[in-house]
Amino acid sequence: MEKVKVALVGFGTIGSGVARLLLEEGPRIARGARKQVELAYVVDKDLKTKRNVTLPDGLLSDDLDRALNDPDVEVVVQLVGGTDAARSIMLRALDSGKNVVTANKALLAAHGPELFDKARQLGRTIAFEAAVGGGIPVIATIGQSLTANRIESIDAILNGTCNFILSEMEQHGSDYEDVVAEAQRLGYAEADPTMDVDGSDATQKLAILAQLAFGASVDWKDIPRMGIDSLAAADIQCAQGMGYSIRLVATARLGTAGLELCVAPTFVSEGTPLAGVQGAFNAVQIVGDAVGPLLLHGLGAGQNPTASAVVADLIDTLAGRTAITFNALNLWSKQTVGVPIRALREIPGRFYLRLDIETQVDAVNQIARVLQEHNTAIDSLAQYEDEESEDRAGMVIMTQETTEGNITDAVGQIEKLPFVQAEAVRCRVAD
Amino acid sequence: MEKVKVALVGFGTIGSGVARLLLEEGPRIARGARKQVELAYVVDKDLKTKRNVTLPDGLLSDDLDRALNDPDVEVVVQLVGGTDAARSIMLRALDSGKNVVTANKALLAAHGPELFDKARQLGRTIAFEAAVGGGIPVIATIGQSLTANRIESIDAILNGTCNFILSEMEQHGSDYEDVVAEAQRLGYAEADPTMDVDGSDATQKLAILAQLAFGASVDWKDIPRMGIDSLAAADIQCAQGMGYSIRLVATARLGTAGLELCVAPTFVSEGTPLAGVQGAFNAVQIVGDAVGPLLLHGLGAGQNPTASAVVADLIDTLAGRTAITFNALNLWSKQTVGVPIRALREIPGRFYLRLDIETQVDAVNQIARVLQEHNTAIDSLAQYEDEESEDRAGMVIMTQETTEGNITDAVGQIEKLPFVQAEAVRCRVAD
Repeated sequence: MEKVKVALVGFGTIGSGVARLLLEEGPRIARGARKQVELAYVVDKDLKTKRNVTLPDGLLSDDLDRALNDPDVEVVVQLVGGTDAARSIMLRALDSGKNVVTANKALLAAHGPELFDKARQLGRTIAFEAAVGGGIPVIATIGQSLTANRIESIDAILNGTCNFILSEMEQHGSDYEDVVAEAQRLGYAEADPTMDVDGSDATQKLAILAQLAFGASVDWKDIPRMGIDSLAAADIQCAQGMGYSIRLVATARLGTAGLELCVAPTFVSEGTPLAGVQGAFNAVQIVGDAVGPLLLHGLGAGQNPTASAVVADLIDTLAGRTAITFNALNLWSKQTVGVPIRALREIPGRFYLRLDIETQVDAVNQIARVLQEHNTAIDSLAQYEDEESEDRAGMVIMTQETTEGNITDAVGQIEKLPFVQAEAVRCRVAD
Repeated sequence: MEKVKVALVGFGTIGSGVARLLLEEGPRIARGARKQVELAYVVDKDLKTKRNVTLPDGLLSDDLDRALNDPDVEVVVQLVGGTDAARSIMLRALDSGKNVVTANKALLAAHGPELFDKARQLGRTIAFEAAVGGGIPVIATIGQSLTANRIESIDAILNGTCNFILSEMEQHGSDYEDVVAEAQRLGYAEADPTMDVDGSDATQKLAILAQLAFGASVDWKDIPRMGIDSLAAADIQCAQGMGYSIRLVATARLGTAGLELCVAPTFVSEGTPLAGVQGAFNAVQIVGDAVGPLLLHGLGAGQNPTASAVVADLIDTLAGRTAITFNALNLWSKQTVGVPIRALREIPGRFYLRLDIETQVDAVNQIARVLQEHNTAIDSLAQYEDEESEDRAGMVIMTQETTEGNITDAVGQIEKLPFVQAEAVRCRVAD
């Protein structure tokens, strides 16, 4: 059986999981790859920190050049986070003639066109199953299994940290800050969870899925995005009272006017698949014109699930499947004409708004007038008492269908009303 | 772009769906296959029946030889049902140098070793995504995406007809016969639904998954199998009263004593993923040692979902991915040493039993004694009145963990007790 070498760059949590699989499950991997795979180099700047896998002596170094200059290295598994250093490592690996496997969604969302063009020019491949949905095979499903379909929509829970926080708030009635602290204690949230809770992470993943499923070239920063960091226990309770759960949902929907993309905390009806997603799980609901609705549900992060996806990509790359798929998909290529993306302000939706107001007799009138001026009809409106103050109240509004532009303008103006006390909380409401 | 010809053999419901995709979605398929695909032959004995797709003149014939003798035909899509004619067509297609795509699970479950050996000898491939789970990419997920994992268990709802019947009975409190008639009217059940409702169809699919995920060579007829045809509204109500739904579950579980395989109506706890599977949907829950629990949920039958999987296989075959996967998996090969299969009588489980009895004072004693003699402890037991007769009663027993052998022997003996009026209804109870 042919022998090949693999270099692992980035020896953090996922890197340790990948190294463990490569060191301990050689026969299993060789069966899939039809090659004997030697983990020949592990490269990281940090040579000191103890990881939960023991490497053979001499394997770990900070010398990337040595790994890239070894002509027997066929694949570089690139698990360095962030975008700048990761981009440079990826370009150098491709320039050295290596195929690359990565789990870095931020890198692909920021530099996909440059990296994929470079790989195509050099006849190399990039595999990235682990970049979206952790261990869930969402890239393979869309890129291979659903190729006979026109994808109509994707609705996905792509950030396990947010889902853990939301489902904990729901189950225990806890407030946002308390659950974030709990999530950090359990290792489900980073010390700085900003990129998770503000929706950036889910939006980067959505940008990748939009490219894969629709050929849509979009800068993730242009996708309308709301995080979960403004939500309070009151919002979860309101949702439950109306038969909804709140989930951070990333949506891509192909309408007649183009592809509608957004990431937002979303009211999903109890009993629907996305409402049932608990804890740190992820789920991706895809609708194709032939296959109908398809749901994939599993662990979207964590050492072992992510390593499972990385090693599957490595096996695909070594066995030759990746090259076929990579060339057929032609991702982030200037030659691919993807679907047009609908102007952000035109994306339709129904919305939930919660406002803190000073009680006054014409508050409802004034707010209703602003909404009406922005072509937004009210489906229901309710005030509830503020337990801490008689002079203040909460107001909850469910709108009928309007647009992102209308609701954004309306909310901006509502927040300027003198009796409105704080920024409005806004969620989308799923169909 | 290279042009290739494809022959479609079997122009029934699924064949019509495949023909429609090939005729109407040429550019989409060419993009995936990187070849222009011409549907050159449609072969069926029945040249008269009107299908819901219109073929170009001259495409449909009953002349299989003409298709197989055309050297430009690369792939035969074999959608003839049953086993005898289908086997002969498949062998002839392989002998003619064609790669084959099929949706026929009965054929693979019965003749997998012969067909796969033949394909390997001739350097051809067989693709069969559509044989299990319809449009759900379960074969690709296990065969490609989870190759870094040791699969620990599969619990699956693989028969949409049974799931439709069970979830209808649950929602409307209807009796079995009424729902079967309704399912036939809606086209969810065949005129003769025996292979569906007696569990044969699900068991054939489980045998294929056992081969794919565990290398287990098993005759599907040797797998312990119970159908749903003995269930009544009373069973559904009992289950609901205890917080369960009943689903026909196919299970493969790798224990220390070997692979445990069975198909049975199963009590699954409300709130678990399988309990949430409604109507004609299928679901496959896979646990891998790295990926953890992964759930795939979608339409397991029907013209378009199944055609989606067939055409995905066709694209994979034309693009070259199938050949790589086919050789790596080495399915149904004498060289592959799969896991041992646990003796059927030893397979552990908890069970639900419902008995119709003539009321008599020592009925519970006698039944309990038989169970005890077969090492089966009772977890709970309840009698309820028979509405039609004062002299009769229903008895419901939940056992603690025992084995298939013990429960089968015990039930056999219980059914011989003079006051037991009918065959016992038996379900498994999920962990």
